[in-house]
Amino acid sequence: MIHRAEGRAPNELRKVSIERAYTKHAEGSVLVSFGETKVLCTASVLAKVPPHKKGSGEGWVTAEYGMLPRATHTRSDREAARGKQTGRTQEIQRLIGRALRAVVDLSALGEHTIHIDCDVIQADGGTRTASITGAYVALSDAVSWLMREGKITRNPIKDSIAAISVGVVAGVPMLDLDYDEDSNCDTDMNVVLTGAGGFVEIQGTAEGVPFSGADLTALLDLAQKGVGELGTLQRQALQA
Amino acid sequence: MIHRAEGRAPNELRKVSIERAYTKHAEGSVLVSFGETKVLCTASVLAKVPPHKKGSGEGWVTAEYGMLPRATHTRSDREAARGKQTGRTQEIQRLIGRALRAVVDLSALGEHTIHIDCDVIQADGGTRTASITGAYVALSDAVSWLMREGKITRNPIKDSIAAISVGVVAGVPMLDLDYDEDSNCDTDMNVVLTGAGGFVEIQGTAEGVPFSGADLTALLDLAQKGVGELGTLQRQALQA
Amino acid sequence: MIHRAEGRAPNELRKVSIERAYTKHAEGSVLVSFGETKVLCTASVLAKVPPHKKGSGEGWVTAEYGMLPRATHTRSDREAARGKQTGRTQEIQRLIGRALRAVVDLSALGEHTIHIDCDVIQADGGTRTASITGAYVALSDAVSWLMREGKITRNPIKDSIAAISVGVVAGVPMLDLDYDEDSNCDTDMNVVLTGAGGFVEIQGTAEGVPFSGADLTALLDLAQKGVGELGTLQRQALQA
Amino acid sequence: MIHRAEGRAPNELRKVSIERAYTKHAEGSVLVSFGETKVLCTASVLAKVPPHKKGSGEGWVTAEYGMLPRATHTRSDREAARGKQTGRTQEIQRLIGRALRAVVDLSALGEHTIHIDCDVIQADGGTRTASITGAYVALSDAVSWLMREGKITRNPIKDSIAAISVGVVAGVPMLDLDYDEDSNCDTDMNVVLTGAGGFVEIQGTAEGVPFSGADLTALLDLAQKGVGELGTLQRQALQA
Amino acid sequence: MIHRAEGRAPNELRKVSIERAYTKHAEGSVLVSFGETKVLCTASVLAKVPPHKKGSGEGWVTAEYGMLPRATHTRSDREAARGKQTGRTQEIQRLIGRALRAVVDLSALGEHTIHIDCDVIQADGGTRTASITGAYVALSDAVSWLMREGKITRNPIKDSIAAISVGVVAGVPMLDLDYDEDSNCDTDMNVVLTGAGGFVEIQGTAEGVPFSGADLTALLDLAQKGVGELGTLQRQALQA
Amino acid sequence: MIHRAEGRAPNELRKVSIERAYTKHAEGSVLVSFGETKVLCTASVLAKVPPHKKGSGEGWVTAEYGMLPRATHTRSDREAARGKQTGRTQEIQRLIGRALRAVVDLSALGEHTIHIDCDVIQADGGTRTASITGAYVALSDAVSWLMREGKITRNPIKDSIAAISVGVVAGVPMLDLDYDEDSNCDTDMNVVLTGAGGFVEIQGTAEGVPFSGADLTALLDLAQKGVGELGTLQRQALQA
Repeated sequence: MIHRAEGRAPNELRKVSIERAYTKHAEGSVLVSFGETKVLCTASVLAKVPPHKKGSGEGWVTAEYGMLPRATHTRSDREAARGKQTGRTQEIQRLIGRALRAVVDLSALGEHTIHIDCDVIQADGGTRTASITGAYVALSDAVSWLMREGKITRNPIKDSIAAISVGVVAGVPMLDLDYDEDSNCDTDMNVVLTGAGGFVEIQGTAEGVPFSGADLTALLDLAQKGVGELGTLQRQALQA
Repeated sequence: MIHRAEGRAPNELRKVSIERAYTKHAEGSVLVSFGETKVLCTASVLAKVPPHKKGSGEGWVTAEYGMLPRATHTRSDREAARGKQTGRTQEIQRLIGRALRAVVDLSALGEHTIHIDCDVIQADGGTRTASITGAYVALSDAVSWLMREGKITRNPIKDSIAAISVGVVAGVPMLDLDYDEDSNCDTDMNVVLTGAGGFVEIQGTAEGVPFSGADLTALLDLAQKGVGELGTLQRQALQA
Repeated sequence: MIHRAEGRAPNELRKVSIERAYTKHAEGSVLVSFGETKVLCTASVLAKVPPHKKGSGEGWVTAEYGMLPRATHTRSDREAARGKQTGRTQEIQRLIGRALRAVVDLSALGEHTIHIDCDVIQADGGTRTASITGAYVALSDAVSWLMREGKITRNPIKDSIAAISVGVVAGVPMLDLDYDEDSNCDTDMNVVLTGAGGFVEIQGTAEGVPFSGADLTALLDLAQKGVGELGTLQRQALQA
Repeated sequence: MIHRAEGRAPNELRKVSIERAYTKHAEGSVLVSFGETKVLCTASVLAKVPPHKKGSGEGWVTAEYGMLPRATHTRSDREAARGKQTGRTQEIQRLIGRALRAVVDLSALGEHTIHIDCDVIQADGGTRTASITGAYVALSDAVSWLMREGKITRNPIKDSIAAISVGVVAGVPMLDLDYDEDSNCDTDMNVVLTGAGGFVEIQGTAEGVPFSGADLTALLDLAQKGVGELGTLQRQALQA
Repeated sequence: MIHRAEGRAPNELRKVSIERAYTKHAEGSVLVSFGETKVLCTASVLAKVPPHKKGSGEGWVTAEYGMLPRATHTRSDREAARGKQTGRTQEIQRLIGRALRAVVDLSALGEHTIHIDCDVIQADGGTRTASITGAYVALSDAVSWLMREGKITRNPIKDSIAAISVGVVAGVPMLDLDYDEDSNCDTDMNVVLTGAGGFVEIQGTAEGVPFSGADLTALLDLAQKGVGELGTLQRQALQA
Repeated sequence: MIHRAEGRAPNELRKVSIERAYTKHAEGSVLVSFGETKVLCTASVLAKVPPHKKGSGEGWVTAEYGMLPRATHTRSDREAARGKQTGRTQEIQRLIGRALRAVVDLSALGEHTIHIDCDVIQADGGTRTASITGAYVALSDAVSWLMREGKITRNPIKDSIAAISVGVVAGVPMLDLDYDEDSNCDTDMNVVLTGAGGFVEIQGTAEGVPFSGADLTALLDLAQKGVGELGTLQRQALQA
């Protein structure tokens, strides 16, 4: 029988908190915590678009991801000092950008870019899912700012979006893995879902033994439950 | 009603060919074609391991991926000239490496690295799935070389592995998308499966509307059919 | 007559807070705030030294500095994405490292490196002086950890160290400039002093008209007063 | 008495083949083989010119060169992963570009760039001379495409161009060195000649003892013979 | 009692020479020597300004600094080969640029950039102060060229500028440290002053024990004396 | 009839000067001038060899080349600031290294590297040939230093080496082209010869019309004459 930290049930999220207006300069600024994982998600509105959107009348949403060097158990090299981002960093920031764009009508955004920065202050597993979940709230705040400022007239956000990790740990499908669980799981999956329950992204990897279709079904059910709860927390945060 | 090039049925692979010993220096060298997509996969045996494996008695399998600049419709910049690999390249080469390691017992490999290079000669959709499928055959040849040379005594390959793309195009779930189909699909998924039918990796992205659990089931069924056929072709190639 | 935000007197510090154990992995982790400027300073103990200290029996203290992209009024490029650190970043991290080494007896540190990371969460002027002031507290915590773990036997810290900015704004010498003041000052000076009141570093620049010896004297007096108060706050934080 | 592989005479080329339309996207695509050396040369037509030609009404021809990591006996690092091209790569691609421009009337090309990519699939000596020889054919195909499409009206190609290596091996002047011969020669020379027999480039290096004027004369005679034969093969390929 | 090389008194400069028109292409070209330290300072006039000045009607003055690899006792890596400038190089070139801009009225410069290059031919301490001192003369020559050519009508130079190092060596405040003195000093300070005697920059660092206010006063007095003498030498050079 | 600057005959060198001990730190330091082209060549002795020579008992000779940004008519970007060396720079430094190694018996050098730096102070054509010619003298001085210090016992220098450019300008073969001649020539050739008159390197490029065998013969005769004279000047300089 598996024992989870804090006595969590296998289908239970860690304590999630979403704190808006965490810093003062950004149009959206959210500190999201999934247990001990803490990510600062800021949304910056830029009055320009990348070359492939110039003159299109459409906007763009993009994301960058970073980890403070000592967010982790042992210090990792600072990417700015190494002179390049790791493959992992690039994968994650591309995922965050794709996920957010899935719920934004770029044509309602005008030629603005919303640039999301997700910086991990402390890592304990699930940094990419926390990033997506928090980034949606920061994005919403930036969109509200754009509307309040009269820069756009129609809300480009079509639905909410959030993400959660699921995995099979010691044979048991579990929701929202922390670092220890993630390091010991057989299968690790990140699932991005809209508020309406549609799948936007599934990324599942067998770390040890391959997984079966049945495992997959169990994991996706857990993910849907988890993302449903995250959606409620996002809504509550945005109404606060 | 959708019309596929060459009159393919929705659940049909493109013509796949696997040509071994394509170049003469590498321990394994395979030209794999999925229709017009052609990838040269070489496996190089190196008598050293990366730092995290030094002194462990275990080996390593890793992969790099590249695209010749004019493998595509319009010329893309040469990554060597730009001075860095794109995020897409890094994502793909990490995926190939993970997929291959899933079927290799690193402890049976001794302190050798098998370095896989997948270079796309011509691209028409599915370069990453062709790469994994061809790389497995190149890896097998490199392992045979190691055993023939007496450098290892136990076959480290635990199962075969192959990959295929699936997607929903104009509402129809389809197997092995070519470039045109891939550019127009709503959902695009790459699935990596072992010869025994276990899932090793699922990467699905909704390009347009989110997908449902039912879509997912249909796509995974197609993928399992396709990878089964690829496994047969891999076996035939290795017995030739 | 100049009006400072929050009704500050010219010789008054902003509200300073020093919060230890801000993140959980680092041997020392301090969130330091000088008004709206917030910097996370972590100290990581590494069981190795740079090449020029190898075999010397001595340790090393070094620092890196970074700014989250949206710590500032307008978003700045992420240095990791640009692929290099700016000249400003390098100047600041070299300054922080020199300042800390001035109060550490490297021979008492054994062959350990204490790697300081100063990451600016929110910027409102004075990020380098806040960094030095907070880094000293993080360093102290890392040294305590080393002694508690029995890795060193003699405390290598010889004195405390802190830093403050001073400047002439509209003709008035002022202590601890915020961003607006810093943008409008004629002379901008950063002063690093030990707890015993010795100067470790002075960096003064005339932004507009050159400054006189009399200006300089007034500014250094202010700096000594300010650093004296910071020393008290550091001591209180370390005793908490 | 020297023994050449395949019983070649000292003044004999290796088996040369030139295969057009090797890949489908490029305006010119040629696989050229000099014995076991195989290079894919593609010519891409771009509707733009580099800055120094903007507004001049003239076009440009440029080349890039690369080697697949396992084209060679032992795997070399992928230049894209190392983040820069070697000096050797840069030297070769500059040579290819200069050689091709020597036979092109840039003013007849309009403001188009023909971008040549020479990628070595398998290396066995003479990759730069094979590249130039194959690139000329790819360039010709790209020019035909431009004329067929009505984008230019006058053929900018003034003459054909090809290149061969010559060297003194064990005292004997020899034509078209393979890798083993090249590794053991005293003098190694690459000669680029037009179809009309004019010298465009000579690059000769004494690897061991310096060479005399008499050696030089013998080598240049061999080169002229060899390039004459290559010209015939280029013509035949273009008429096929 | 300290013995200085060449029997210098503590408050004495090394032999300083300023040679104009040292190379022939640059609008200003000065070889400046402070004893054995020799720096070539060239000023290039460019008919363009950096982005932040475009359309402003104002010009810009900027500087780059480099050291020939064997300017020093032991060879240092060539920065161009390493692929980046060190933090020290960046600090120095930023300092030179700031110092020169302090005496230039950018609005009188029109949209021209004066680009200063300071390249150290031989180093023996004080390269940054020699650079600033020589660069001022090169800048003056470039300004004269601009006026002679009728490209500007008003002299943008408001005052002269020069710099000197001072330090406490074995307890004695000294002027213009050579390499040996610099390596053994307790406090090392670089001071930039205008011809009118105003401070533009002070950068002081305690290498060993912290310095007191009294030390500081003594050092600044020395610096003022030294820069006064440098100003005379600059004037004489410009009148020659 | 062509008019050369300073009334030079077609087969005449520019005024060449070779000044030893130009800077004080390097084991060999030579300022070489070919007319207005001035290059500082230093030779640094390092007590280490590159990886491919480690443990071989043999030494190494290598070269780096650079151009001060304003050595030329218009300022070129500083390579250290751009973050990489151009292809031209790499070509030249590889050429210098090869040329010097052709006259050095590496086995007599012990495990020392002689690192040559050629830095162009002023450019007026022929920088690479001046570099080789001056570098030989600097190398000789470094070898003398090694013998004087007792670090090697046998002189590793087998012969002298020098280089000159030749070209066909307005139909006339000419020796030692200056910048204007080089910019207007049809054929440009750099020739490296030993003191004994053996060819070490020939690099000839037709800039305009291809050249004939007769042109080539005339150019090589000129080059032999010129290098003969350079050899005399090198000998005189070394005996001074």
